[in-house]
Amino acid sequence: MSPEIDRKAFRDLSYGLYIVTSRYEDRLNGQIVNTVIQVTSDPPRVAVIINKKNLTHEFISKTKAFGVSVLEQSAPMSFFGPFGFRSGRDIDKLSKVGYEEGVTGIPLITEHALSTLEVKVFDQIDLGTHTIFIGDAVNSAVLKTGRPLTYQYYHEELKGKSPPAAPTYVSEK
Amino acid sequence: MSPEIDRKAFRDLSYGLYIVTSRYEDRLNGQIVNTVIQVTSDPPRVAVIINKKNLTHEFISKTKAFGVSVLEQSAPMSFFGPFGFRSGRDIDKLSKVGYEEGVTGIPLITEHALSTLEVKVFDQIDLGTHTIFIGDAVNSAVLKTGRPLTYQYYHEELKGKSPPAAPTYVSEK
Repeated sequence: MSPEIDRKAFRDLSYGLYIVTSRYEDRLNGQIVNTVIQVTSDPPRVAVIINKKNLTHEFISKTKAFGVSVLEQSAPMSFFGPFGFRSGRDIDKLSKVGYEEGVTGIPLITEHALSTLEVKVFDQIDLGTHTIFIGDAVNSAVLKTGRPLTYQYYHEELKGKSPPAAPTYVSEK
Repeated sequence: MSPEIDRKAFRDLSYGLYIVTSRYEDRLNGQIVNTVIQVTSDPPRVAVIINKKNLTHEFISKTKAFGVSVLEQSAPMSFFGPFGFRSGRDIDKLSKVGYEEGVTGIPLITEHALSTLEVKVFDQIDLGTHTIFIGDAVNSAVLKTGRPLTYQYYHEELKGKSPPAAPTYVSEK
Protein backbone atom coordinates (compact mmCIF):
# COMPACT_ATOMS: atom_id res chain seq x y z
CA MET A 1 0.00 0.00 0.00
CA SER A 2 1.50 3.35 -1.01
CA PRO A 3 0.48 6.50 0.87
CA GLU A 4 -2.20 8.49 -0.86
CA ILE A 5 -4.85 10.90 0.37
CA ASP A 6 -8.30 10.53 -1.16
CA ARG A 7 -10.25 13.47 0.24
CA LYS A 8 -13.54 11.80 -0.59
CA ALA A 9 -12.86 9.34 2.23
CA PHE A 10 -13.42 12.12 4.79
CA ARG A 11 -16.93 12.70 3.47
CA ASP A 12 -18.00 9.39 5.00
CA LEU A 13 -17.52 10.76 8.53
CA SER A 14 -20.82 11.66 10.21
CA TYR A 15 -21.64 14.86 12.10
CA GLY A 16 -24.52 16.89 13.46
CA LEU A 17 -25.08 20.59 12.84
CA TYR A 18 -25.01 23.06 15.69
CA ILE A 19 -24.96 26.76 16.40
CA VAL A 20 -22.07 27.62 18.68
CA THR A 21 -22.63 30.85 20.56
CA SER A 22 -20.17 33.12 22.32
CA ARG A 23 -20.00 36.49 23.99
CA TYR A 24 -17.41 39.14 24.66
CA GLU A 25 -18.58 41.97 26.91
CA ASP A 26 -21.88 43.05 25.35
CA ARG A 27 -21.18 41.56 21.91
CA LEU A 28 -22.97 38.30 21.11
CA ASN A 29 -22.13 35.92 18.30
CA GLY A 30 -23.12 32.58 16.85
CA GLN A 31 -21.84 30.36 14.05
CA ILE A 32 -22.71 27.02 12.51
CA VAL A 33 -20.37 24.13 13.19
CA ASN A 34 -20.43 20.39 12.61
CA THR A 35 -17.68 19.78 15.14
CA VAL A 36 -19.30 19.48 18.56
CA ILE A 37 -18.41 16.25 20.30
CA GLN A 38 -18.85 14.83 23.78
CA VAL A 39 -15.40 13.71 24.91
CA THR A 40 -16.10 12.22 28.35
CA SER A 41 -19.20 11.12 30.19
CA ASP A 42 -18.07 11.55 33.80
CA PRO A 43 -17.79 14.47 34.13
CA PRO A 44 -19.62 15.52 30.96
CA ARG A 45 -17.05 17.28 28.78
CA VAL A 46 -17.45 18.68 25.31
CA ALA A 47 -15.08 19.81 22.55
CA VAL A 48 -15.57 22.09 19.57
CA ILE A 49 -13.29 22.96 16.66
CA ILE A 50 -13.30 26.57 15.46
CA ASN A 51 -11.47 28.31 12.59
CA LYS A 52 -8.97 30.90 13.80
CA LYS A 53 -10.35 33.50 11.39
CA ASN A 54 -13.83 33.38 12.93
CA LEU A 55 -15.11 35.94 15.42
CA THR A 56 -16.24 33.00 17.57
CA HIS A 57 -12.58 32.01 17.92
CA GLU A 58 -11.70 35.46 19.21
CA PHE A 59 -14.57 35.44 21.71
CA ILE A 60 -13.97 31.91 23.06
CA SER A 61 -10.23 32.60 23.35
CA LYS A 62 -11.00 35.66 25.50
CA THR A 63 -13.82 34.35 27.67
CA LYS A 64 -13.19 30.57 27.74
CA ALA A 65 -16.88 29.79 27.36
CA PHE A 66 -19.24 28.76 24.58
CA GLY A 67 -22.80 27.64 24.07
CA VAL A 68 -24.19 24.92 21.81
CA SER A 69 -27.67 24.70 20.31
CA VAL A 70 -28.51 21.37 18.70
CA LEU A 71 -30.59 22.23 15.63
CA GLU A 72 -33.74 20.28 14.84
CA GLN A 73 -33.96 18.61 11.43
CA SER A 74 -36.86 20.88 10.44
CA ALA A 75 -34.87 24.07 11.02
CA PRO A 76 -35.05 26.03 7.74
CA MET A 77 -31.96 27.16 5.87
CA SER A 78 -33.31 30.71 6.06
CA PHE A 79 -32.97 30.46 9.85
CA PHE A 80 -29.50 29.00 10.26
CA GLY A 81 -27.90 30.00 6.93
CA PRO A 82 -26.79 33.43 8.15
CA PHE A 83 -24.93 31.74 11.03
CA GLY A 84 -22.78 29.89 8.51
CA PHE A 85 -22.09 32.30 5.73
CA ARG A 86 -22.01 35.73 7.39
CA SER A 87 -19.51 37.08 9.91
CA GLY A 88 -20.50 38.47 13.28
CA ARG A 89 -18.08 41.28 12.48
CA ASP A 90 -20.55 42.52 9.84
CA ILE A 91 -23.97 41.75 11.29
CA ASP A 92 -25.57 41.11 14.66
CA LYS A 93 -26.61 37.50 14.11
CA LEU A 94 -28.53 37.25 17.36
CA SER A 95 -30.81 40.22 16.72
CA LYS A 96 -33.58 38.24 15.06
CA VAL A 97 -33.57 34.88 16.84
CA GLY A 98 -34.95 33.56 20.11
CA TYR A 99 -32.35 32.99 22.79
CA GLU A 100 -31.90 33.07 26.53
CA GLU A 101 -28.90 33.94 28.63
CA GLY A 102 -27.02 31.01 30.14
CA VAL A 103 -25.37 30.80 33.55
CA THR A 104 -22.09 32.16 32.14
CA GLY A 105 -23.79 35.01 30.30
CA ILE A 106 -23.47 33.20 26.97
CA PRO A 107 -26.57 33.45 24.74
CA LEU A 108 -28.20 30.06 24.13
CA ILE A 109 -30.32 29.95 20.98
CA THR A 110 -33.62 28.25 21.75
CA GLU A 111 -35.36 28.68 18.38
CA HIS A 112 -35.31 25.52 16.24
CA ALA A 113 -33.13 23.89 18.93
CA LEU A 114 -33.68 20.46 20.49
CA SER A 115 -31.29 21.09 23.34
CA THR A 116 -28.62 23.47 24.58
CA LEU A 117 -25.26 23.05 26.28
CA GLU A 118 -23.06 25.58 28.00
CA VAL A 119 -19.36 24.86 28.32
CA LYS A 120 -16.45 26.34 30.29
CA VAL A 121 -13.18 25.78 28.43
CA PHE A 122 -10.23 24.34 30.37
CA ASP A 123 -7.83 23.42 27.57
CA GLN A 124 -7.19 23.95 23.88
CA ILE A 125 -4.86 22.71 21.13
CA ASP A 126 -3.58 24.66 18.15
CA LEU A 127 -4.45 22.59 15.05
CA GLY A 128 -3.02 24.98 12.44
CA THR A 129 -5.97 26.65 10.74
CA HIS A 130 -8.28 25.76 13.65
CA THR A 131 -8.25 25.39 17.44
CA ILE A 132 -9.95 22.68 19.44
CA PHE A 133 -11.51 24.03 22.64
CA ILE A 134 -12.30 21.50 25.36
CA GLY A 135 -14.40 22.19 28.42
CA ASP A 136 -16.77 21.12 31.15
CA ALA A 137 -20.49 21.27 30.52
CA VAL A 138 -21.85 23.54 33.24
CA ASN A 139 -25.41 23.60 32.03
CA SER A 140 -27.50 21.51 29.64
CA ALA A 141 -31.18 21.34 28.84
CA VAL A 142 -33.57 19.47 26.57
CA LEU A 143 -36.01 21.92 24.97
CA LYS A 144 -38.06 19.54 22.86
CA THR A 145 -38.11 16.06 21.40
CA GLY A 146 -37.28 15.57 17.75
CA ARG A 147 -34.72 14.51 15.18
CA PRO A 148 -31.45 16.40 15.18
CA LEU A 149 -30.23 18.02 11.97
CA THR A 150 -27.25 16.12 10.63
CA TYR A 151 -24.51 17.19 8.25
CA GLN A 152 -25.63 14.42 5.91
CA TYR A 153 -29.23 15.72 5.85
CA TYR A 154 -27.93 19.24 5.26
CA HIS A 155 -25.94 18.10 2.22
CA GLU A 156 -28.36 15.54 0.78
CA GLU A 157 -31.79 16.97 1.50
CA LEU A 158 -31.15 20.69 1.88
CA LYS A 159 -28.40 20.72 -0.78
CA GLY A 160 -26.26 22.78 1.55
CA LYS A 161 -22.58 23.53 1.04
CA SER A 162 -19.65 23.79 3.43
CA PRO A 163 -18.11 27.24 3.88
CA PRO A 164 -14.32 27.49 3.29
CA ALA A 165 -13.70 27.91 7.03
CA ALA A 166 -15.15 24.46 7.84
CA PRO A 167 -12.75 21.68 8.93
CA THR A 168 -14.51 19.47 6.38
CA TYR A 169 -14.31 21.96 3.50
CA VAL A 170 -13.37 20.43 0.16
CA SER A 171 -12.64 22.76 -2.73
CA GLU A 172 -14.76 22.06 -5.80
CA LYS A 173 -11.66 22.59 -7.98
CA MET B 1 -31.33 30.37 34.49
CA SER B 2 -29.80 28.17 37.20
CA PRO B 3 -27.06 25.69 36.29
CA GLU B 4 -28.30 22.17 35.81
CA ILE B 5 -27.03 19.23 33.79
CA ASP B 6 -29.65 17.26 31.89
CA ARG B 7 -27.72 14.32 30.48
CA LYS B 8 -30.42 13.67 27.91
CA ALA B 9 -29.29 16.82 26.10
CA PHE B 10 -26.06 15.08 25.06
CA ARG B 11 -28.04 12.37 23.28
CA ASP B 12 -28.98 14.91 20.61
CA LEU B 13 -25.37 15.12 19.41
CA SER B 14 -24.78 13.17 16.18
CA TYR B 15 -21.95 10.75 15.44
CA GLY B 16 -20.86 8.04 13.07
CA LEU B 17 -19.60 4.60 14.07
CA TYR B 18 -16.08 3.52 13.27
CA ILE B 19 -13.55 0.81 14.00
CA VAL B 20 -10.30 2.34 15.22
CA THR B 21 -7.35 0.03 14.69
CA SER B 22 -3.92 0.04 16.27
CA ARG B 23 -0.79 -2.05 16.46
CA TYR B 24 2.06 -2.60 18.87
CA GLU B 25 4.86 -4.78 17.55
CA ASP B 26 3.04 -7.86 16.20
CA ARG B 27 -0.14 -7.34 18.22
CA LEU B 28 -3.11 -5.92 16.34
CA ASN B 29 -6.24 -4.42 17.85
CA GLY B 30 -9.48 -2.71 16.91
CA GLN B 31 -12.35 -1.11 18.81
CA ILE B 32 -15.61 0.62 18.01
CA VAL B 33 -15.77 4.37 18.58
CA ASN B 34 -18.21 7.14 17.73
CA THR B 35 -15.59 9.83 18.25
CA VAL B 36 -13.69 10.23 15.00
CA ILE B 37 -13.73 13.79 13.73
CA GLN B 38 -11.95 15.73 11.00
CA VAL B 39 -10.43 18.77 12.69
CA THR B 40 -8.82 20.62 9.77
CA SER B 41 -9.09 20.41 6.00
CA ASP B 42 -5.67 21.75 4.99
CA PRO B 43 -3.80 19.66 5.89
CA PRO B 44 -6.33 16.92 6.58
CA ARG B 45 -6.16 16.23 10.30
CA VAL B 46 -8.24 13.85 12.38
CA ALA B 47 -8.93 13.39 16.09
CA VAL B 48 -10.20 10.42 18.06
CA ILE B 49 -11.16 10.06 21.72
CA ILE B 50 -10.18 6.82 23.46
CA ASN B 51 -10.83 5.55 26.99
CA LYS B 52 -7.64 5.16 29.02
CA LYS B 53 -8.62 1.64 30.08
CA ASN B 54 -8.74 0.37 26.51
CA LEU B 55 -5.94 -1.59 24.89
CA THR B 56 -6.23 0.79 21.93
CA HIS B 57 -5.16 3.61 24.27
CA GLU B 58 -2.05 1.72 25.24
CA PHE B 59 -1.15 0.96 21.62
CA ILE B 60 -1.76 4.49 20.25
CA SER B 61 0.18 6.01 23.17
CA LYS B 62 3.15 3.80 22.28
CA THR B 63 3.13 4.02 18.50
CA LYS B 64 1.42 7.38 17.83
CA ALA B 65 -0.60 5.95 14.97
CA PHE B 66 -4.13 4.69 14.41
CA GLY B 67 -6.41 3.55 11.61
CA VAL B 68 -10.08 4.29 11.00
CA SER B 69 -12.60 2.20 9.10
CA VAL B 70 -15.90 3.93 8.37
CA LEU B 71 -18.56 1.23 8.76
CA GLU B 72 -21.31 0.88 6.19
CA GLN B 73 -24.90 1.08 7.44
CA SER B 74 -25.51 -2.54 6.45
CA ALA B 75 -22.67 -3.86 8.60
CA PRO B 76 -24.23 -6.51 10.89
CA MET B 77 -23.96 -6.34 14.66
CA SER B 78 -22.42 -9.82 14.57
CA PHE B 79 -19.52 -8.31 12.62
CA PHE B 80 -18.73 -5.20 14.63
CA GLY B 81 -20.19 -6.15 18.03
CA PRO B 82 -17.04 -7.93 19.23
CA PHE B 83 -15.05 -4.74 18.54
CA GLY B 84 -17.20 -2.87 21.05
CA PHE B 85 -17.83 -5.26 23.87
CA ARG B 86 -14.71 -7.44 24.02
CA SER B 87 -11.16 -6.46 24.93
CA GLY B 88 -8.19 -7.10 22.68
CA ARG B 89 -6.46 -8.29 25.85
CA ASP B 90 -8.72 -11.37 25.81
CA ILE B 91 -9.25 -12.12 22.12
CA ASP B 92 -7.54 -11.45 18.82
CA LYS B 93 -10.23 -9.29 17.23
CA LEU B 94 -8.55 -9.13 13.84
CA SER B 95 -8.29 -12.88 13.34
CA LYS B 96 -11.62 -13.27 11.56
CA VAL B 97 -12.02 -10.05 9.57
CA GLY B 98 -10.69 -8.76 6.27
CA TYR B 99 -7.97 -6.12 6.58
CA GLU B 100 -4.89 -4.84 4.84
CA GLU B 101 -1.74 -3.32 6.24
CA GLY B 102 -1.44 0.46 5.96
CA VAL B 103 1.66 2.51 5.25
CA THR B 104 2.47 2.74 8.97
CA GLY B 105 1.94 -0.99 9.54
CA ILE B 106 -1.48 -0.36 11.12
CA PRO B 107 -4.16 -2.87 10.06
CA LEU B 108 -7.02 -1.21 8.15
CA ILE B 109 -10.26 -3.17 8.25
CA THR B 110 -11.75 -3.33 4.77
CA GLU B 111 -14.73 -5.60 5.45
CA HIS B 112 -18.03 -3.69 5.75
CA ALA B 113 -16.05 -0.44 5.44
CA LEU B 114 -16.83 2.46 3.10
CA SER B 115 -13.45 4.07 3.53
CA THR B 116 -10.29 3.95 5.59
CA LEU B 117 -7.99 6.56 7.10
CA GLU B 118 -4.55 6.22 8.58
CA VAL B 119 -3.35 8.84 11.04
CA LYS B 120 -0.01 9.78 12.62
CA VAL B 121 -0.57 11.39 16.01
CA PHE B 122 1.23 14.68 16.76
CA ASP B 123 -0.56 15.83 19.91
CA GLN B 124 -2.89 14.65 22.64
CA ILE B 125 -4.82 16.04 25.62
CA ASP B 126 -5.65 14.26 28.86
CA LEU B 127 -9.42 14.53 29.32
CA GLY B 128 -9.67 12.61 32.61
CA THR B 129 -11.16 9.20 31.79
CA HIS B 130 -10.21 9.58 28.10
CA THR B 131 -7.48 11.00 25.89
CA ILE B 132 -7.97 12.86 22.65
CA PHE B 133 -5.35 11.94 20.05
CA ILE B 134 -4.88 14.35 17.14
CA GLY B 135 -2.91 13.59 14.01
CA ASP B 136 -2.22 14.03 10.33
CA ALA B 137 -3.96 11.76 7.86
CA VAL B 138 -1.15 10.06 5.97
CA ASN B 139 -3.32 7.75 3.92
CA SER B 140 -7.02 7.62 3.03
CA ALA B 141 -9.05 5.57 0.60
CA VAL B 142 -12.64 5.11 -0.52
CA LEU B 143 -13.45 1.41 -0.78
CA LYS B 144 -17.06 1.59 -1.88
CA THR B 145 -20.05 3.90 -2.14
CA GLY B 146 -22.83 3.64 0.42
CA ARG B 147 -24.44 5.05 3.51
CA PRO B 148 -22.28 5.28 6.62
CA LEU B 149 -23.45 3.67 9.83
CA THR B 150 -24.43 6.36 12.32
CA TYR B 151 -24.70 6.25 16.08
CA GLN B 152 -28.38 7.15 15.71
CA TYR B 153 -29.03 4.22 13.37
CA TYR B 154 -27.16 1.93 15.75
CA HIS B 155 -29.39 2.96 18.66
CA GLU B 156 -32.72 3.30 16.85
CA GLU B 157 -32.65 0.57 14.22
CA LEU B 158 -30.17 -1.96 15.61
CA LYS B 159 -31.21 -1.32 19.25
CA GLY B 160 -27.56 -1.14 20.19
CA LYS B 161 -26.23 0.04 23.54
CA SER B 162 -23.19 2.08 24.53
CA PRO B 163 -20.49 0.28 26.50
CA PRO B 164 -19.44 1.90 29.82
CA ALA B 165 -16.11 3.02 28.31
CA ALA B 166 -17.83 5.25 25.71
CA PRO B 167 -17.59 9.05 26.10
CA THR B 168 -21.35 9.12 25.53
CA TYR B 169 -22.18 6.38 28.05
CA VAL B 170 -25.23 7.08 30.21
CA SER B 171 -25.93 4.75 33.10
CA GLU B 172 -29.42 3.25 33.00
CA LYS B 173 -29.71 3.73 36.79
